[in-house]
Amino acid sequence: MRPYILVNVAVSADGKLSTRERRQVKISGTDDFARVDIIKSGADAIMVGIGTILADDPSLTVKSPERIADRLSTGRPEHPIRIIIDSKARTPPNAKILHKGPGKRIVAVSSAAPEERIAALSPHAEIISTGSEEVDLVVLMEKLGSQGIKRLMVEGGGTLIAGLFNAGLVDQLSMFIGNIIIGGSSAPTLADGPGWTQETDFTKLELMQIQQLDQGVQIDWRVRR
Amino acid sequence: MRPYILVNVAVSADGKLSTRERRQVKISGTDDFARVDIIKSGADAIMVGIGTILADDPSLTVKSPERIADRLSTGRPEHPIRIIIDSKARTPPNAKILHKGPGKRIVAVSSAAPEERIAALSPHAEIISTGSEEVDLVVLMEKLGSQGIKRLMVEGGGTLIAGLFNAGLVDQLSMFIGNIIIGGSSAPTLADGPGWTQETDFTKLELMQIQQLDQGVQIDWRVRR
Ligand SMILES: NC(=O)c1ccc[n+]([C@@H]2O[C@H](COP(=O)([O-])OP(=O)(O)OC[C@H]3O[C@@H](n4cnc5c(N)ncnc54)[C@H](OP(=O)(O)O)[C@@H]3O)[C@@H](O)[C@H]2O)c1
Ligand SMILES: NC(=O)c1ccc[n+]([C@@H]2O[C@H](COP(=O)([O-])OP(=O)(O)OC[C@H]3O[C@@H](n4cnc5c(N)ncnc54)[C@H](OP(=O)(O)O)[C@@H]3O)[C@@H](O)[C@H]2O)c1
Repeated sequence: MRPYILVNVAVSADGKLSTRERRQVKISGTDDFARVDIIKSGADAIMVGIGTILADDPSLTVKSPERIADRLSTGRPEHPIRIIIDSKARTPPNAKILHKGPGKRIVAVSSAAPEERIAALSPHAEIISTGSEEVDLVVLMEKLGSQGIKRLMVEGGGTLIAGLFNAGLVDQLSMFIGNIIIGGSSAPTLADGPGWTQETDFTKLELMQIQQLDQGVQIDWRVRR
Repeated sequence: MRPYILVNVAVSADGKLSTRERRQVKISGTDDFARVDIIKSGADAIMVGIGTILADDPSLTVKSPERIADRLSTGRPEHPIRIIIDSKARTPPNAKILHKGPGKRIVAVSSAAPEERIAALSPHAEIISTGSEEVDLVVLMEKLGSQGIKRLMVEGGGTLIAGLFNAGLVDQLSMFIGNIIIGGSSAPTLADGPGWTQETDFTKLELMQIQQLDQGVQIDWRVRR
């Protein structure tokens, strides 16, 4: 069985994840950081796309020492398993995510990944290969489920999130909407890729809750089946 | 003095105004339609960009007979003045906005607008020319203010809205966030154009209110100066 999949992102009021240069921008504040850290520490695994690794070089560790202690005291590893969706194994072997903090990493590749790049990543991560050109997200999720991953948090970016929606793999969408306008027709958004053109193909959501947080708005949606 | 400028749009949960084909999509519901009609009937003028005219062919009239009666009983015209931002006078002379319902129309053009197209639109609308290639929004707004327009509602699209933010011409942003994912890296968003890359150039907003409405969320932001 595949994990429960929660997508969590911060967007500007005009729906952007970052600038057109794909430069990471402070969208939320300390209260939202804490909220995200709580979700992360409650997850078995956390996932990002290779675009986000190349743009932001995140470490994806749990930040709060208390929440790390809590994970350890309940027999869980310090950090969730960190997973990169990376068809061609483009993850730089010195990427922070592979080196910061203890814990398992998985790089999900496809048959299109060159052997030598897989070899360079293998000392740092388990390699799971699915799909011929792109990672087959449905097959991957089944494999992750059979590894005992029950709760998966996805941090982005917009191309991966669109791929997950396309495959019917999102259960919950949590978003923080910040009080800035970033603008730009080519800036990354919450769901990029080709998008959908017919109403019947749009993912439908159900509002779970809204709250004011920091200087913005935090919304949780459940995906309708 | 320029009018008070309120931008009102409906976006999908992933921040899109329409599909990548620029096809209009039902994002909100009856409660939000009523809310928008109230804002519209309280405005002296309503504005859209030529992209929206060509994509949607809207009429931009006040819909509720009660609100129309209320406007008339307070000595105001049935509908707000309808304004199109259209540098090259590309508005089709048979566009609905020029023919549906009584009231004044303005087509704002630039010096780049061909004479014959201006001539074709002149029977239906006042023509105001500013700017050499594009409409000069700052100069235009001063002219609209001196015509007695105090409250201007802007309905979009994302290119015009970005131009208004760029010129510091937005006072309030009201948005309805619908419960669908449209997706698409090239689908129109709330603020398109080139966008901004530096924090100092981002427009900063202040939260006025949030509410649940229809199946979505309605947010009002004030623009910080
Ligand atoms: N504000 C936030 O909360 C937030 C969070 C995360 C990221 N971001 C921003 O998002 C931007 C990066 O987003 P992005 O869209 O460029 O990259 P991304 O979504 O992180 O990664 C997308 C890549 O994943 C790979 N992939 C493999 N299989 C896939 C599949 N089946 N479906 C979809 N993707 C698949 C593809 O590359 P290959 O074909 O090479 O494998 C694809 O280009 C950065 O600017 C970052 O700052 C913001
Ligand atoms: N969901 C909603 O609430 C909503 C509301 C409105 C529109 N929409 C959607 O938005 C899409 C259309 O948006 P759009 O971005 O393509 O077009 P748009 O914003 O309606 O119009 C943009 C055009 O205005 C003209 N313009 C002239 N001077 C300008 C200036 N100084 N700054 C900016 N623009 C200036 C430009 O064309 P010229 O150079 O030819 O003059 C520009 O391409 C459609 O898909 C429509 O369905 C959705």
